[in-house]
Amino acid sequence: MTSATLTTSRNPDLTAVLGDIGRRARAASRLVALATTDHKNEALSAMASALRAAAPDILAANAEDVTEARSRSATAALIDRLRLDAKRIAAMADGIEVVAGLADPVGAVTDAWTRPNGMRIERVRVPLGVIGVIYESRPNVTADAGALCLKAGNAVILRGGSDSFRSSRAIHAALTEGLRAADLPEDAIQLVPTRDRTAVGLMLGGLDGNIDVIVPRGGKELVARVQTEARVPVFAHLDGNCHIFIDAAADLAMARTIVMNAKLRRTGVCGAVETLLVDRAVAGTHLAPLVTMLLDAGCAVRGDADTRAVDPRVTAAVEEDWYTEYLDAIIAVKVVDGLDEAIHHINHYGSHHTDAIVTADPAAAERFLAEVDSAIVLHNASTQFADGGEFGFGAEIGIATGRLHARGPVGVEQLTTFKYRIRGSGQTRP
Amino acid sequence: MTSATLTTSRNPDLTAVLGDIGRRARAASRLVALATTDHKNEALSAMASALRAAAPDILAANAEDVTEARSRSATAALIDRLRLDAKRIAAMADGIEVVAGLADPVGAVTDAWTRPNGMRIERVRVPLGVIGVIYESRPNVTADAGALCLKAGNAVILRGGSDSFRSSRAIHAALTEGLRAADLPEDAIQLVPTRDRTAVGLMLGGLDGNIDVIVPRGGKELVARVQTEARVPVFAHLDGNCHIFIDAAADLAMARTIVMNAKLRRTGVCGAVETLLVDRAVAGTHLAPLVTMLLDAGCAVRGDADTRAVDPRVTAAVEEDWYTEYLDAIIAVKVVDGLDEAIHHINHYGSHHTDAIVTADPAAAERFLAEVDSAIVLHNASTQFADGGEFGFGAEIGIATGRLHARGPVGVEQLTTFKYRIRGSGQTRP
Repeated sequence: MTSATLTTSRNPDLTAVLGDIGRRARAASRLVALATTDHKNEALSAMASALRAAAPDILAANAEDVTEARSRSATAALIDRLRLDAKRIAAMADGIEVVAGLADPVGAVTDAWTRPNGMRIERVRVPLGVIGVIYESRPNVTADAGALCLKAGNAVILRGGSDSFRSSRAIHAALTEGLRAADLPEDAIQLVPTRDRTAVGLMLGGLDGNIDVIVPRGGKELVARVQTEARVPVFAHLDGNCHIFIDAAADLAMARTIVMNAKLRRTGVCGAVETLLVDRAVAGTHLAPLVTMLLDAGCAVRGDADTRAVDPRVTAAVEEDWYTEYLDAIIAVKVVDGLDEAIHHINHYGSHHTDAIVTADPAAAERFLAEVDSAIVLHNASTQFADGGEFGFGAEIGIATGRLHARGPVGVEQLTTFKYRIRGSGQTRP
Repeated sequence: MTSATLTTSRNPDLTAVLGDIGRRARAASRLVALATTDHKNEALSAMASALRAAAPDILAANAEDVTEARSRSATAALIDRLRLDAKRIAAMADGIEVVAGLADPVGAVTDAWTRPNGMRIERVRVPLGVIGVIYESRPNVTADAGALCLKAGNAVILRGGSDSFRSSRAIHAALTEGLRAADLPEDAIQLVPTRDRTAVGLMLGGLDGNIDVIVPRGGKELVARVQTEARVPVFAHLDGNCHIFIDAAADLAMARTIVMNAKLRRTGVCGAVETLLVDRAVAGTHLAPLVTMLLDAGCAVRGDADTRAVDPRVTAAVEEDWYTEYLDAIIAVKVVDGLDEAIHHINHYGSHHTDAIVTADPAAAERFLAEVDSAIVLHNASTQFADGGEFGFGAEIGIATGRLHARGPVGVEQLTTFKYRIRGSGQTRP
């Protein structure tokens, strides 16, 4: 296929195309909502097989995407996210099989009670409906999001980045083959067939009520656009400005291990710690070892006056640093006057994502866990556990920083909603 | 107080006023989120007592509102919603005590598991934060919403209708007195101190991130405005276009009782049935008795050709009727070709609120309960049970027709969210 057919210049009515995708997704969602667990798993297994069989086609399509990206002088980071190899394709297929192995959330009765008049009320998990996933250069999102949404009984409309358009299309073809093999509607997983960014705007408008929720997967610019323009609910992942507080009763050895892991295991993940707070009561013993450890490991440290005093390599932190998610080997460090100031600092400057306390004092830990207003709060563990896999969810479509519906890692359970099922014997309301 | 002080002509900077309300609400939300159940209940009891003691003041303020409404030639329906008497004030106070008696949702651990590395993960209910409630002429919403939000550990910003401004202010003064008596922050329940509708727009903008969710309580025009303009999540109640399907295996006596109750017990509630669907297989025996019963009881019937054939008083239903929530003594009636067409009709024309099947066939009932995509689905019971009180929730702030977070009656539990609390012993991520 030539690049000309990838543009929308020959597609005068994108609104009609997307409108049709929405209607077909809604119709498919009614069918996959009722599919049995075995039926969905059969489709997922067939999707994984088709993906493995299609590896040569996917690699060829991906090579074209990479060539085009290089011709545009794309960054090395983008090329790395974009590029597929046999191992990455195998990982995608394995990931789909992991999703097949997850418990089916649909149909679970989460609450049930009988009213005095004899009516039995059940609250039961049902699919959300149609999910719109808008992502950027990582083509594997096509498979990951398609599988997760299907497992939770939803239809999904995927809108991949234009960089990875051919790769996503090749992956999507394999998913479609799996759906067909299992006799589930192909419209359950649709890929927007254009690179025109106007399609994103149309999806954010909800396609005449045919998209129930939008999940953006990508950089801050994409997420910000989605948050601003969406007329439907969004499971958004904003900043992961994560903190660790070294309490007065913290064991130094544990503090060293946790801080090192939370900052430097991987610096580009949303659960990486960005600000270290140290209780003044132990600053004399704990601050210098922690700061020196980080500096010696190649991490830049931006500190308040107390922190700058312990090592000349520490540069001055400014107000903006306390708000910043570096996603890099940089950390902001501040000495605070006890637990109260730590909690206040985190609730004020943080992003309500993931925050940890290191302490041997159970009372301090309980207060921290209760009063820090974040999706994930940890006692004596690394912030890098902020991950659906590490939670045991098997797979995730992202980490939600909003407060409603989904919060923290978004796995299959968060891709469902519920309904009330009432069984009576002729009851009427007095 | 003269009406001049009720306008904003002397309030040049409403943005600053609302911004300050938002910041104070956020600060108060941190405190009430941590308040014990006993402490919140103490405040609720004090609020109920203060409300009873303030009855003369509230009635005087209400009389001014009613006089003004009459001078504007307000409708009798509006005056009825607006007017308070001793009995209505007592009911408000009783309602607050009911809320005090409800189980506290905050702190409930809804799931807990241990990871292979020994980390213990708990999912625990926490308050939503700051709730904005925008309502119209019913002054009792001030007390109901204030009490429910507080019980769930939230701060609330109330924006009552301008018709009931003085009444709401008098009720709010009593709530404030209760908070003060229990030493909880008065800012936990704030009333927007102006009738200027610009305040609504500011609230819909989220007050710099200081409103987490908006709950509109009022007519379709208000809800539509909120849905269109809100930049924060909304628990909206759209139409309650409810259906009853009389299946081929329906007992006629039960069908009569349920249809009569669902349509005519009260016609103005959202759970009132608006469309009756009758299976063609029993149209010969069931259609005429049901239609005649409704007509004889004073209900207008708009029917398809089959329905018009059973009684000359039936007028012709047009396409629009199938979409309409009458909220009146009017019903649309259609004969359908079995369960499949009934389900399709409801999912297509309905509003996903509340729908019922009458049948003695368990298999038909199960299919209806599974395949009708509504917040509440009932077998052999009246649609008028769509109510938080009837569900046993004690009280509700409304019925949500959206799919996310809250669906169906919104009680204290739906006014919370959750966080993950993780307890470790030094774990780091490999």
